[in-house]
Amino acid sequence: MSEPPRHHRLMFADLGREIEGLDEESVLHAARRAGVRIVGACGGRGTCGSCMIRVAQGKIESHAGEDLARHHRWRRACQSRIRSDCTIQIAPRSLAPVARAEVGHRQEAPLVADSAITGRDITVPPASLADHRSDWERVAEALDARVSPPDLDALSVLPGLLRANDWSVRVRQEAGHVLGFAAPGRRELGLAVDLGTTNLAAFLIRLDTGERLASLGIENPQAAWGGDVISRINHAIQAHDGAEELRAAVVRGIDAITQDLVRAVGAGIGDVVEAAVCGNTAMHHLLAGLPVTQLGRAPFVPAVSAGLTPRATALGLALAPGARVHLVPNIGGFVGGDHVAALLASEQHWRSGCCLVMDIGTNTEISLIHEGRIVSASCPSGPALEGGHVSCGMRAAIGAIERVSVEAGRLRVSTIGRKKAVGVCGSGVLDAMAALLEGGMMERSGRLRAGHPDVVEIDGLRSARLAKDIHFTQHDVRAVQLAKSAIRTGMELLLRQAGIEATQLERIVIAGAFGAYLSVDSAVDIGLLPDLPRERFLQVGNAAGLGVCRMLVNRADRARAQDIARGARYLELSSIADFQQHFLKHISLNGPWRERKIS
Amino acid sequence: MSEPPRHHRLMFADLGREIEGLDEESVLHAARRAGVRIVGACGGRGTCGSCMIRVAQGKIESHAGEDLARHHRWRRACQSRIRSDCTIQIAPRSLAPVARAEVGHRQEAPLVADSAITGRDITVPPASLADHRSDWERVAEALDARVSPPDLDALSVLPGLLRANDWSVRVRQEAGHVLGFAAPGRRELGLAVDLGTTNLAAFLIRLDTGERLASLGIENPQAAWGGDVISRINHAIQAHDGAEELRAAVVRGIDAITQDLVRAVGAGIGDVVEAAVCGNTAMHHLLAGLPVTQLGRAPFVPAVSAGLTPRATALGLALAPGARVHLVPNIGGFVGGDHVAALLASEQHWRSGCCLVMDIGTNTEISLIHEGRIVSASCPSGPALEGGHVSCGMRAAIGAIERVSVEAGRLRVSTIGRKKAVGVCGSGVLDAMAALLEGGMMERSGRLRAGHPDVVEIDGLRSARLAKDIHFTQHDVRAVQLAKSAIRTGMELLLRQAGIEATQLERIVIAGAFGAYLSVDSAVDIGLLPDLPRERFLQVGNAAGLGVCRMLVNRADRARAQDIARGARYLELSSIADFQQHFLKHISLNGPWRERKIS
Repeated sequence: MSEPPRHHRLMFADLGREIEGLDEESVLHAARRAGVRIVGACGGRGTCGSCMIRVAQGKIESHAGEDLARHHRWRRACQSRIRSDCTIQIAPRSLAPVARAEVGHRQEAPLVADSAITGRDITVPPASLADHRSDWERVAEALDARVSPPDLDALSVLPGLLRANDWSVRVRQEAGHVLGFAAPGRRELGLAVDLGTTNLAAFLIRLDTGERLASLGIENPQAAWGGDVISRINHAIQAHDGAEELRAAVVRGIDAITQDLVRAVGAGIGDVVEAAVCGNTAMHHLLAGLPVTQLGRAPFVPAVSAGLTPRATALGLALAPGARVHLVPNIGGFVGGDHVAALLASEQHWRSGCCLVMDIGTNTEISLIHEGRIVSASCPSGPALEGGHVSCGMRAAIGAIERVSVEAGRLRVSTIGRKKAVGVCGSGVLDAMAALLEGGMMERSGRLRAGHPDVVEIDGLRSARLAKDIHFTQHDVRAVQLAKSAIRTGMELLLRQAGIEATQLERIVIAGAFGAYLSVDSAVDIGLLPDLPRERFLQVGNAAGLGVCRMLVNRADRARAQDIARGARYLELSSIADFQQHFLKHISLNGPWRERKIS
Repeated sequence: MSEPPRHHRLMFADLGREIEGLDEESVLHAARRAGVRIVGACGGRGTCGSCMIRVAQGKIESHAGEDLARHHRWRRACQSRIRSDCTIQIAPRSLAPVARAEVGHRQEAPLVADSAITGRDITVPPASLADHRSDWERVAEALDARVSPPDLDALSVLPGLLRANDWSVRVRQEAGHVLGFAAPGRRELGLAVDLGTTNLAAFLIRLDTGERLASLGIENPQAAWGGDVISRINHAIQAHDGAEELRAAVVRGIDAITQDLVRAVGAGIGDVVEAAVCGNTAMHHLLAGLPVTQLGRAPFVPAVSAGLTPRATALGLALAPGARVHLVPNIGGFVGGDHVAALLASEQHWRSGCCLVMDIGTNTEISLIHEGRIVSASCPSGPALEGGHVSCGMRAAIGAIERVSVEAGRLRVSTIGRKKAVGVCGSGVLDAMAALLEGGMMERSGRLRAGHPDVVEIDGLRSARLAKDIHFTQHDVRAVQLAKSAIRTGMELLLRQAGIEATQLERIVIAGAFGAYLSVDSAVDIGLLPDLPRERFLQVGNAAGLGVCRMLVNRADRARAQDIARGARYLELSSIADFQQHFLKHISLNGPWRERKIS
């Protein structure tokens, strides 16, 4: 006979949260279940070290059964099994913050509203024994007798609304077609969602004016199944009902954030009549319930690239009855709708001339625009440049080292909020690399040099000491080298297929949260970006977020995004014969990129 | 502390079924739950006597706690509470038969197929690193680059189909628009459903040829909540989640019958790419998830009258991915899509001239067509004419008395299948009335006359003896009188508003299962139908079923039905000032309807 599993109480004192865990369950898993947001970039496989905890009280074992509490050391939450009631401290850098950086567009450009959706209050003659037409016919006549009825979920609220509001009702139409109904006087709001692998940012916007009413960011709830796209795809393919688990998780996340947003502005779910969602192709497919098997193996083909506009109900999202969701089109398996949205939002910067648009992240999407043509590629750069999979890496939050420089031969750091350093975020990682080179603490090959007071051995691993307890290890250097090489190779191969040189680039648009804060000088120093006049670089912040907001409120922008996606050509880098040679060549840090000709 | 409810075993020996019942539960309720189909026309309120059972063994109590088993008498199943394991016999007339009569059209007219849906096998170039377009784009190019993607549920099966069939796939299109996909070589089938209050008949049809492949009828599973429309509406309004219970029940019923149909012809659910459903307005609203509150009280207004074509998924029906369902438009709160379908199917009989089309049932719909205009009314005739709410009433099944005549002054009956009489069905009820008049056993007022050998007292109630244990009581006579008067009044008021006389009617089309078998002579004898030359009457059988089949396979018929529904005017009889006077006048059986002028 199997006994029921034993339960233990886990106290997170710093958060004031007490949760329940099962005996032998990992701390990370228990925390995820209860919504305590510990970063776990590798999805709990024990490979990244982003989920660090310390046991203040109670019994925690390793998988091998070793009692960990005795050491009072930082341990991976995913490798720590609960064996009694515990009090646990989460490392500051492992606390998943609400990602405000993802929400704000660098330039809060006003949105130009031209929504196809309008709302209008009408009053119809009451039903009587002498006038027993249906409710819908009554409304249709007040509008235009030839209009078709809306979807059933929208129609089903009409009888109640008419009778509760003295035969008045608000009719929402889109280009003549009736979408749904509401109580008289309600507004028409839209929801724009930037659905990243890591974060989910949402914006509530008035469709008539384009006014942004509120915005909010949360961690993508799918993070519980792994920090990167490949982990999620694997879960969807291998686990029973895995795809449905992931779909339901992100739907719950969007529903929750929508609830918070409408509450914040005194509106209701029934006011959200339209949504637009951009995300990479995997996020798109998982939300849409499309299969990802073919996306996870060569030749990495999407089920669909065109823009889709399903009913919110078909996605399982709770919006106004009759609401539609615009899913931003993608360009290929690894260049998704988020990049299309970023291209849309930055179009004024690349419309003419020769230009690169890039969004640096775990996957770095790059588009080369040249002679009116767009060619896009995806570089598997890994999370290192965002501070992920780096031993002391963290998000851009309070206490994160965001700048590293060399002063009098020693490393100097500054942190976000000028607080005690708790980890290093993406821009700090890039600066650290440049500073190590500049200070002579690292060879061009990437090897850290012993003998410098800031280069130490930690657990037998050569590391640069950035601050007390914050080290940048030889492994971290290697991870950044791989990221740099992936991106550099992608840029070079894109340029080569177009037959142009880096110096011909008139503009390099760097989009994304990390890109907003990186030091272009550092990136040039390590050879990530070409050494061009600095005025050619433009850091535009969360262009994907801005783009999806524009697509929500403006139908011309929606059409334009469709054109951009359809017109862009996807270049699969791994299919290029000498991709591997280029990649290997660029791992070393051979100084700034000034070559005039790419071989 | 409440104890868990006790369970008892109920054995239905004649059916070879053993089910479980809860202590104190009614036999009817337990049978319904388990799918043992006992007729229960009043929905278990104890008013109709159509759910008769006898306890062979075990303990059954009345609501008052009286032990019923001792008497070994026929009892209402709805008023019998289970107190122990029991062996139970269901009265033959209370066994709900599969209603084959509903399925067959009197004339199996060939269907003229002109479906907008076509299927076509295509082969696309395989995906490769050199050709990494999305699956959809691959298909779209093979069709026409400007075609839009189908719904998500349809799109989601494409990647699997392409890879399982060596990059071939069957594409289903409707007027250029892509509906969905299937394995190469599959057929395109359609499902037509005549969703009656009592029975649900379904037809599986090839969309390309119009060939009827199979048909099947079952009792409407909503019958568990009452035999008539009003009981169902009341349940939807009053019970928590009542509307959803009713919706789910009928969806389960349609899904089950569809499964049986496709299995019978070696097809699959994925081949059923389109459906059409006709039903009265309440059945329509309950299936569509539309509210019925406003339909259940004056002025009895539908939420919508226009035809709707929701996704099968929006109704919760399991058909092919991307399938749509045509919901036949209605004319008013009590003249539904089933009548529209009957009008469509019988149009050749009424197109020119002055004509009545009627479908006699619990609710009798009548349309008067005169000078190209259609005016429709609904008469609350009750179930008596179908053998419901009649003490020994039953469906038209084996053993049902279907004909009653007078020979040598005595009543003579004949039964369906020439078997021992077990009850009386609708056509027998009408004949019985005419025979009682003819044989002088009943006064024109409807009062049964004592003294005749076939008129006896049963439990203190004067009754005509039709066969051994089968009686037609004074109450039954009254029920038929009310039904006759309701229909007669409706016809008269329709004629009066058009300013014409009954003798001017060139054609009376009688649709429906009951109408197919009624004796026009008997109906004329009791004054239900006008005494016109018999060749003017046309009994067309299940015209609604034929009509919905035609709407499924032929788009012109769909458009025509929409026109018929839109053009028809609904006359609310109860709003006519002297409706009540007419109704009271026609309760008595004042001989054939030969008046030249209706006052």
